[in-house]
Amino acid sequence: MKRIAILGSTGSIGCSTLRVAEAYPDRFEVVALAAGNNLNMVFEQVKQWQPRLVSMAKEEDAEKLRSLLRQRGMSAIEVVFGAAGAVKVATCPEVDFVVSAIVGVAGLEATYEAVRAGKILGLANKECLVAAGDLITAEARRQGKPLLPIDSEHNAVHQCLRGGRMEEVERIWLTASGGPFLNKPQSEFGSITVEQALNHPTWKMGKRITIDSATLMNKGFEVIEACRLFHVPPAKVEVMVHPQSTIHSMVEFVDGSILAQFSVTDMRLPILYALTYPERIESDMRFSVSDLRHLDFCPPDVNKFPCLRLAYEAVAAGGGKTVALNAADEVAVAAFLDGKITFDEIPNIIEAVVARTSSQPPESIGTVLKVDSESRQAAREEVQKRKRRVTSFA
Amino acid sequence: MKRIAILGSTGSIGCSTLRVAEAYPDRFEVVALAAGNNLNMVFEQVKQWQPRLVSMAKEEDAEKLRSLLRQRGMSAIEVVFGAAGAVKVATCPEVDFVVSAIVGVAGLEATYEAVRAGKILGLANKECLVAAGDLITAEARRQGKPLLPIDSEHNAVHQCLRGGRMEEVERIWLTASGGPFLNKPQSEFGSITVEQALNHPTWKMGKRITIDSATLMNKGFEVIEACRLFHVPPAKVEVMVHPQSTIHSMVEFVDGSILAQFSVTDMRLPILYALTYPERIESDMRFSVSDLRHLDFCPPDVNKFPCLRLAYEAVAAGGGKTVALNAADEVAVAAFLDGKITFDEIPNIIEAVVARTSSQPPESIGTVLKVDSESRQAAREEVQKRKRRVTSFA
Repeated sequence: MKRIAILGSTGSIGCSTLRVAEAYPDRFEVVALAAGNNLNMVFEQVKQWQPRLVSMAKEEDAEKLRSLLRQRGMSAIEVVFGAAGAVKVATCPEVDFVVSAIVGVAGLEATYEAVRAGKILGLANKECLVAAGDLITAEARRQGKPLLPIDSEHNAVHQCLRGGRMEEVERIWLTASGGPFLNKPQSEFGSITVEQALNHPTWKMGKRITIDSATLMNKGFEVIEACRLFHVPPAKVEVMVHPQSTIHSMVEFVDGSILAQFSVTDMRLPILYALTYPERIESDMRFSVSDLRHLDFCPPDVNKFPCLRLAYEAVAAGGGKTVALNAADEVAVAAFLDGKITFDEIPNIIEAVVARTSSQPPESIGTVLKVDSESRQAAREEVQKRKRRVTSFA
Repeated sequence: MKRIAILGSTGSIGCSTLRVAEAYPDRFEVVALAAGNNLNMVFEQVKQWQPRLVSMAKEEDAEKLRSLLRQRGMSAIEVVFGAAGAVKVATCPEVDFVVSAIVGVAGLEATYEAVRAGKILGLANKECLVAAGDLITAEARRQGKPLLPIDSEHNAVHQCLRGGRMEEVERIWLTASGGPFLNKPQSEFGSITVEQALNHPTWKMGKRITIDSATLMNKGFEVIEACRLFHVPPAKVEVMVHPQSTIHSMVEFVDGSILAQFSVTDMRLPILYALTYPERIESDMRFSVSDLRHLDFCPPDVNKFPCLRLAYEAVAAGGGKTVALNAADEVAVAAFLDGKITFDEIPNIIEAVVARTSSQPPESIGTVLKVDSESRQAAREEVQKRKRRVTSFA
């Protein structure tokens, strides 16, 4: 029986993790949950799973949940809140495996503390590796515990890497759907609407990650994650556009052999893989190989999608630059969604913010959060400049 | 330093093995060679590699080679001949690794003796697994030594299998180019010329294997090899047509993940893999992933290519049936190449011969050779019947 904690239980990955746990009741026990503000959903989850410990983002929600549980005679379940609450969930002594799926830097501290507490980590939180990857991977190595990626690309890479040793890896090839603007001329990027950008061809995801897929910044983040997770330099990580997203990623070995992984596009599959690794267990998520017909590929156009270049540059420069990249992107994407800037200004804002950030490696999660906050402020200023410019032209 | 013997040194796989050895002089030493009748080529190989032991198919060639070597002051090299000579090469005490690449049942005994002598085997000889697979794999297991497949499909499967455990395998997917008649209507199969059938779309190979690729019998043999090599029932081995032959094969795991292997279509790659396993070493055989564009797939048409069905039936029935399948195919293909029968009669002859063969598992290589010889005779009779029929219509 594997005892699980989920950081971000009401998000998409959190819910998928619970569906996996539900399918294998004799393998997984859900022991602790950390959620955000969706009180109703948390209450349903707690009723179903009866964990020992639950954390809410806000104190008032924690109080409401406590009262709801009391009415049901479930007051033995401990309810905590805030950053300290999430850390308590992440480090809960009864837990073996922590799924890190809180979106944004809010999940950083709890994830880092889970690793420090010797938990096995299933990583779905992008910021953990983009902003604090060196700290987290160094700690996992110190603990001798695996970091298991829960996103389709790095999970695929993890699987392909089993075909050889790390020193036998020539290159990691991340596949990219190419997003909705793969075939749109760059000259039209300035007039892309929010609605167009939110229309991702293969995956249904949250708004920020959908825009990040349209700019290829998401793929840029994945390049950074791959470098950190698999301890390879950026020169060893390449991107290939593969519109069907059937092949989730590939690993090229020094002898010239390439292994590729594919499966249905269902996040429960990488979650199950991470939860059961090094075993594989039977699932109903079957890819019908007989129905396979065409797979298409092309290299990405870095001129058209400068975010990808910015990610390579940031990880090569190291340290604080990738913290700034992530923070500035979040602010720029929000500004685009709010109609404050045009689509093609997203990379310009990020580039400006990253340029003024030190490449000094952050020595603690505290420093990461400080650089993150400064970069957000800088990004907001950049947005403001452009917003003003747009206004003055109007 | 790995010390190598090659059974079939002047054939295509033998020459490729020597090219691999040449590229890594500090890793591989060529200790013993067994060849057929190409005296000139053997002499060149012996001059270059100076092995301890050489075997020729015929006694007269062995004598000629001895005399040539004497003139060069190389009479310390022992020259033997015939089946016993090949066995001597296969069991040479100084040898660690035996490449089994003699075409046809001629290689059976030497290959079996290599396994009995505790050598690690690199298998390129199809008959070893199709005709005598159970004997050879049982002996390898008894010896605790790996059997490493040297053909692109099974080598790919071997690589993909590293992504999990054997009991986690749902299915093995062998890819097939589909041969030159993939899109030809079945109604035209009777008028296929030898020249058309010899025109394979992706691989340059010998005549028999090229015809076997056109009938899909080659893929049928590979299904049987996969069953024997990886100890899986035929229901777990599937074929997918993939005209580009880029992906060499795939393994589907019980969790729904599929791993696929691809590389350049160069036999030196599986040879290098087998020779260095479990290591991988740097090679110049690079597949340019950036140049990847389209991969196409479709399921095979078993009605159009009955040889594939015959192979599944033979391996399911077991034992002598697969010996007969191979023997009858060789005779039928030769008859087609000689203009004695039409292309669409190849499966009919094989089916007739397999039907009258016992499914009793052969208990020794001797029995395999006996069933082989009887099946050839039966196949010649079947050819004769059809030839007569053709003549009487004319």
